[in-house]
Amino acid sequence: MKKFINDPNNLTNELLQGMALAYPRKVKIVDEKLVVRAEAKSSDKVAVVSLGGTGHEPAVQGFVGKGMLDVCAAGDIWAAPGPPTLLAAMKEVNREAGMLLVTLNHAGDVMSANMAKQMAEAEGIKVVEILTTEEVRPTADEEGRGLGGCFFIYKICGAAAEQGKSLDEIAALANKINDNMATIAVLSELATHPSTGGVCGTLGDDEMEICAGQHGEGGGVVMPMASSKETVKILADKIVEKKGLKSGDEIILIINGSGKTTLMEQYIAFKDASDYFTDKGIKIVGGHASEVLTVQEAGGYQMIVLKADAEIKELWEAPCDTPGYTVQ
Amino acid sequence: MKKFINDPNNLTNELLQGMALAYPRKVKIVDEKLVVRAEAKSSDKVAVVSLGGTGHEPAVQGFVGKGMLDVCAAGDIWAAPGPPTLLAAMKEVNREAGMLLVTLNHAGDVMSANMAKQMAEAEGIKVVEILTTEEVRPTADEEGRGLGGCFFIYKICGAAAEQGKSLDEIAALANKINDNMATIAVLSELATHPSTGGVCGTLGDDEMEICAGQHGEGGGVVMPMASSKETVKILADKIVEKKGLKSGDEIILIINGSGKTTLMEQYIAFKDASDYFTDKGIKIVGGHASEVLTVQEAGGYQMIVLKADAEIKELWEAPCDTPGYTVQ
Repeated sequence: MKKFINDPNNLTNELLQGMALAYPRKVKIVDEKLVVRAEAKSSDKVAVVSLGGTGHEPAVQGFVGKGMLDVCAAGDIWAAPGPPTLLAAMKEVNREAGMLLVTLNHAGDVMSANMAKQMAEAEGIKVVEILTTEEVRPTADEEGRGLGGCFFIYKICGAAAEQGKSLDEIAALANKINDNMATIAVLSELATHPSTGGVCGTLGDDEMEICAGQHGEGGGVVMPMASSKETVKILADKIVEKKGLKSGDEIILIINGSGKTTLMEQYIAFKDASDYFTDKGIKIVGGHASEVLTVQEAGGYQMIVLKADAEIKELWEAPCDTPGYTVQ
Repeated sequence: MKKFINDPNNLTNELLQGMALAYPRKVKIVDEKLVVRAEAKSSDKVAVVSLGGTGHEPAVQGFVGKGMLDVCAAGDIWAAPGPPTLLAAMKEVNREAGMLLVTLNHAGDVMSANMAKQMAEAEGIKVVEILTTEEVRPTADEEGRGLGGCFFIYKICGAAAEQGKSLDEIAALANKINDNMATIAVLSELATHPSTGGVCGTLGDDEMEICAGQHGEGGGVVMPMASSKETVKILADKIVEKKGLKSGDEIILIINGSGKTTLMEQYIAFKDASDYFTDKGIKIVGGHASEVLTVQEAGGYQMIVLKADAEIKELWEAPCDTPGYTVQ
């Protein structure tokens, strides 16, 4: 492991502090593990809250800021924060208007979120949870995990909250987004856990894994490396099938680099995906190619697709200002 | 080489097309090799023009857009565009108010820029060139190359042009920025040329190179890998010495990941650099930690420091909207 770090057991604190020092007008750190908007949103508006392990920068803490998350509870590297940390996050933005809690479907996050939500409700906090489950799995009977599609919930529900929509409206919107989106991951090189130096999974020199999930947990389909165009077709076919996309549909497309895969390759994949969807009569009405949710120096990327309607399109274009994503 | 590409000889076209497809409201591609603002700036304002090889995404073409570059001529991977391409870029934004041409000090770029400028002037185009030379070299008598500091010129001169400043004022500002900035690169892993598979340079498993330049051309100082804090001190000491920074000075700081080095490490480096400068009484008044100018999957980062005054601070905060950088 060749990384520029200090104490391997203090990575989370140092990286969060670094982020806040780089973007002090966007975020601040409270009690070491809460990333909070530098200027709070007016308290008559619904708050949007999330949680997640660190080591996935800019996700998920880097999406706190105007127009996206109000607060995000940080766990250690690749580990969910404990319930008390998430409860503290919820208290930090507690309000009459209530809050949307966005949980990615991973065992640790789900457990923390459920416990924290119970404790919060016992204290009178008004919270609705959305569990993101948009991952495309190799077979239809496996439950999807929450991958980079959380970004769509943060961005679009964050914009709706900024506009003053009610908690019921925002919860309905979050459900619509989760139902209408799909993410599929391809992995070409393994990541190293920066605290332990451990490597997740195995992968041959000429192999890639489709449906690889976030960390290389395995369970995907290993096959020989392919060209960008071929890889895009494999991924996009599965998304089209799962979501039943057809000619005339409109989508927002994200190519989310996992770490080592260059932005050059992400742009090429975006072009290939654009060609693919256009050939099918599916129109791309919004896009982003960037590192949204990374896994250290993992190779590969996530293709994240959201079927869009008028409401989603308008909110996607709305302004936001976070360390990881800014719309003017 | 394990990359998601198609034809290794058509990378530049595909990646530029992908970028424009992802951000059609920000940029468009003209004649395959010119990246142009989607909506032209009003023609009574000075244009800002640059050139550079591709394979460094988002730099340099990704900084075209409102508030930064008006047009950028693209070369092949790591190669300058030829003079005709740059001349075409200059004609694309030709105007009474004139244009600033930003050239990074690398032999190929300098040659293309000089020839294109002569041809442009012969055709009556009003152009002033700024050559960026801000790199810290191992010894004081070596001429600095132009590294990621071009980003400061694009951002700040782009904002000045947007405000309607004259070409003389913008040229003076560009010179001030070049004089007041310094960049130093540390390299921990080598990049692969995505067309040829060739690797630039050599580096041992436990080594890093200081003053490594952009592509691993060599000429830097090879030493054992060090912690983030130690590495930051080595880099920042050289910048402080070269620029004569002292207590009371204000700076804008960028930690620019080269590719493989994670955003986690960039945030940690930002924190360590913030601690370092604060200890010296030097105040960080603006920051950015991100991949600004990458070199494929190279490990390491560039520390880019600009001594700021009131004019620079105001223009740094001004809005911009490009694929690679957005300020609200």
